[in-house]
Amino acid sequence: MTHKNFKNIDKVTYGRGSFSQLAQTVEPLRNENNKYFVYVIDNYFKGKPLSNQLQNKTEDLVYFIDVDPYEPTTQQIDQLRDEILSKKGLPSGVIGIGGGSIMDIAKALSLMLTNEGSSTLYQGLNLIKKPGIYHLGVPTTSGTGAEVSMTAVLTGPEKKLGLKCDWTVFNQVILDPELIASVPKDWWFYTGMDTYIHCIESHNGIRNNAFSLAYGDQALHLCREVFLNDKAGQTPENDDKLMVASLMGGLSLTYSEVGVCHALSYGLSKIHGTRHCFANCIIFQHLKDIYPEGVDEFNQMIKKHRIELPQNLSKEWNEDVLTQMATVSYNLPFMWNHAFGDKYREIATMDYIKDLFRRL
Amino acid sequence: MTHKNFKNIDKVTYGRGSFSQLAQTVEPLRNENNKYFVYVIDNYFKGKPLSNQLQNKTEDLVYFIDVDPYEPTTQQIDQLRDEILSKKGLPSGVIGIGGGSIMDIAKALSLMLTNEGSSTLYQGLNLIKKPGIYHLGVPTTSGTGAEVSMTAVLTGPEKKLGLKCDWTVFNQVILDPELIASVPKDWWFYTGMDTYIHCIESHNGIRNNAFSLAYGDQALHLCREVFLNDKAGQTPENDDKLMVASLMGGLSLTYSEVGVCHALSYGLSKIHGTRHCFANCIIFQHLKDIYPEGVDEFNQMIKKHRIELPQNLSKEWNEDVLTQMATVSYNLPFMWNHAFGDKYREIATMDYIKDLFRRL
Repeated sequence: MTHKNFKNIDKVTYGRGSFSQLAQTVEPLRNENNKYFVYVIDNYFKGKPLSNQLQNKTEDLVYFIDVDPYEPTTQQIDQLRDEILSKKGLPSGVIGIGGGSIMDIAKALSLMLTNEGSSTLYQGLNLIKKPGIYHLGVPTTSGTGAEVSMTAVLTGPEKKLGLKCDWTVFNQVILDPELIASVPKDWWFYTGMDTYIHCIESHNGIRNNAFSLAYGDQALHLCREVFLNDKAGQTPENDDKLMVASLMGGLSLTYSEVGVCHALSYGLSKIHGTRHCFANCIIFQHLKDIYPEGVDEFNQMIKKHRIELPQNLSKEWNEDVLTQMATVSYNLPFMWNHAFGDKYREIATMDYIKDLFRRL
Repeated sequence: MTHKNFKNIDKVTYGRGSFSQLAQTVEPLRNENNKYFVYVIDNYFKGKPLSNQLQNKTEDLVYFIDVDPYEPTTQQIDQLRDEILSKKGLPSGVIGIGGGSIMDIAKALSLMLTNEGSSTLYQGLNLIKKPGIYHLGVPTTSGTGAEVSMTAVLTGPEKKLGLKCDWTVFNQVILDPELIASVPKDWWFYTGMDTYIHCIESHNGIRNNAFSLAYGDQALHLCREVFLNDKAGQTPENDDKLMVASLMGGLSLTYSEVGVCHALSYGLSKIHGTRHCFANCIIFQHLKDIYPEGVDEFNQMIKKHRIELPQNLSKEWNEDVLTQMATVSYNLPFMWNHAFGDKYREIATMDYIKDLFRRL
């Protein structure tokens, strides 16, 4: 079809304190399959107050998962799936509580619990064969848009690429701005900037329409309130807004695309394991010729919040490493096409991409 | 639950020309139930080009329905349901093509095809007992938000009230801005103003949060571009925007409420049969003391597009008629509460409401 037919999150709860409704929300699902839920939670919360508010039942399996420093891998999902199925069979559903990586793990796990073989088989668009099980996302950082997207990004032995299909989208998300209050300042900034960069890239390219612009521009407006204006900073009011900005930034991409920063970011992350949002920030500061206004505003926000980004990384990279990074980025033609139009192949050559990496 | 858990439209297609994807979109559903679709289409399109682009199959039932001057009634839905079931049994799905009234008919019909007895039994929140069948909406006017809402408003012998539950929400909408290009100018204005008034009412009240504000304020921004700014008017670019504004205005109400204008509008429509969007406009012009900035802007838009609204209607209304109208409006406490806060019962008395009607 020419026009995308996009799958929404089935149900959305938004509001301060709404996390306390988790148990009620999943109660009607508890008779499905082997009548238990799997929780996947960012290890960051182990021993923290949130770990006492999980509302889990004794039969549930609770996994605290370390997503630092590495992003989710295909191997990790396959192992977790095998362990869960051999322990207790098919669960009623998966509940993910954490940042973008945990959202991706919950989405991927839901699919891989019903699809046989390694998740590497399904990296790409519409390769998944059967619907996954019920999955619910509770984001504790805001910005990646993973709570709303139809992709579960995994790093495999060969590629960093999502399991992407309608069934990837969450059945339920609970958006409780209280949960993002405790994000350390630097990660509050990096993850929030993921939305900001999504929207700048989404706006500046050829694959736009009024839908993506309306969502993207409102998300940018909210980002400016959270990160740039007089009342900027980690306040409850701004947490409320950032959570909506992340959702809207994600929806903006439904009818648009990310661009140069994300294409480079995938190369940086795949070869060096750099976390996605952080990688975006490291790169975006150097793209003023491509996104002049966006990078100007970004640098103002960097200054305002006294964020220090690593510099001169490329000193350590030899030609071989640069080629590996550039190859990953080069193989994301949709992003380059969106950013540079029909003649993108003439512009975004391997040499050009390597030169962009040399700026870092 | 304290925080609403709202049901999204399952799938959304947006874009110029996307209506041509209708047949492809429903193809996978054609094996459901008795393997045929019911089309409900605004009679306005009978003999017009759109009626040759329906992409229906010979087995489908196609109903052109006159929604002028009256809004959908419970009796109408019950009769249509009975006729469809006796003719061909349970359809695979219902496809609605038209404005807000047709959207309401498609939603109500989908529910009443599986729920026994009269639709008057189900007017209210969560009274429907079984999920309806697949239903797809193709709006041809923009503004009511009926394409996204969880209610199918019906006028019954006793009340004008929606069938309201998660199952009311469309499984699919196709948003093709080309379809709203032919709306006559006055109805383009009235229906568009429904979104504008939604957002003014949603913003000015006690039941707000950052979600409803972000959606409502962006819808207002789009309305200003469509109806107020230099480039205002019925242009393709503005049709693109108005269709998104309607969706966002509807989503703004998810975490907020309409207010005084809608409360009065229900009274006017129930007693005099005035169409919803038109009734809103007739009323809103007189509410400057309640929504000062909104009414100012509304009057600028009225002037810009040379819309003439009826005046001095209340001359014809005796005390008995005013009491009937005010009773309908009085019995919408959520709207008055949202608009006036906790002391709303002291403000929005029957006498006060009658006085508001006397302004018309």
